[in-house]
Amino acid sequence: MLEYSEPIAKLIDEFKKLPGIGQKNAQRLVFFILRKSKEDVESLAKSLLEVKEKIKICSVCNNLTDIDPCFYCTSPDRDRSVICIVEEPYNLVAIEKTRSYKGLYHILHGALSPIRRIKPDDLKLSNLFPRLKPENNQMITVKEIIIATNPTTEGEATAHYIANLIKPLGIRVTRIATGMPVGSDLEFVDEVTMDKALANRHEI
Amino acid sequence: MLEYSEPIAKLIDEFKKLPGIGQKNAQRLVFFILRKSKEDVESLAKSLLEVKEKIKICSVCNNLTDIDPCFYCTSPDRDRSVICIVEEPYNLVAIEKTRSYKGLYHILHGALSPIRRIKPDDLKLSNLFPRLKPENNQMITVKEIIIATNPTTEGEATAHYIANLIKPLGIRVTRIATGMPVGSDLEFVDEVTMDKALANRHEI
Repeated sequence: MLEYSEPIAKLIDEFKKLPGIGQKNAQRLVFFILRKSKEDVESLAKSLLEVKEKIKICSVCNNLTDIDPCFYCTSPDRDRSVICIVEEPYNLVAIEKTRSYKGLYHILHGALSPIRRIKPDDLKLSNLFPRLKPENNQMITVKEIIIATNPTTEGEATAHYIANLIKPLGIRVTRIATGMPVGSDLEFVDEVTMDKALANRHEI
Repeated sequence: MLEYSEPIAKLIDEFKKLPGIGQKNAQRLVFFILRKSKEDVESLAKSLLEVKEKIKICSVCNNLTDIDPCFYCTSPDRDRSVICIVEEPYNLVAIEKTRSYKGLYHILHGALSPIRRIKPDDLKLSNLFPRLKPENNQMITVKEIIIATNPTTEGEATAHYIANLIKPLGIRVTRIATGMPVGSDLEFVDEVTMDKALANRHEI
């Protein structure tokens, strides 16, 4: 029994390929698309093609960008003595939103994971080391590497792996703090976070 | 501060226009799109444009279709003496999935709602009445109208409004049953449904 005409069924299938979108959600999106103007749908389709066409990986820091090197790597306003290492390009946004970090970035595009078979070679790490060499006269020598991988097993493993590689170079390596999230409640915090929050206590 | 390069920011904005997709989800979708092959993204963009280009509203029953009249209206296998009225095109799919209904459909593309200012004229109802006329020799006279609008205030109001228009024509008008969903638990059912389930009890 043909339930949907072919173009509808095909778009439902296309939407279902996207993360977190199941059959029901895909249907809902298609019927929303059908109610939209031709211009709106063309604008969405165009954006999809454009993002794929124009966005590349920065050859310096691996950020997703439409210019290479990217905005951060070329900006004269950024502190070139600090590099913050993150797992994914969108993690960079979380840090930028604080408006307190003014250094550079290095994006790994992943984290070490024996379960998901992600090995050091699968991370975009090799282009970090040329950035740390003092003989590169175009940049101020890097003084600190902040490892901002996620506070998960995989993120921690990645952080330690990278720290062990960088420390011998005589560069300071730091790790973002773990503890209670601001605005959270002791009643609802998990025991691992609580344990970290206790261990990392400081004088007030 | 420029956080995302322009094509990424634009696609995030486009995704955010879709129902149920907020900033975080839109970001996630964009980074998923960026990891996909060019062919996959082109296929999605093409489907979007195709659905908009090819899908029309059936002139007989208001179903969304790429042929007019639609599959159901032209099928020789459907029982032309029954018309099932639903609110939205996707409601038709819920009924088709039962595989027990073999009649025709009429899609209203909405339900009466004073709050959302949806009046009888806003429903696609006017083309229902020519379908009910016995002088139309091309079809067997309609013997029953099943009103399958949602069991909500708006759906019930719409059902009663339509029933009052059709009954004077001497056609049987029925309404889908309300009660406990199959496989549900009395513990979790709301009181209105429970009340309906009690009121609509039948001999076993």
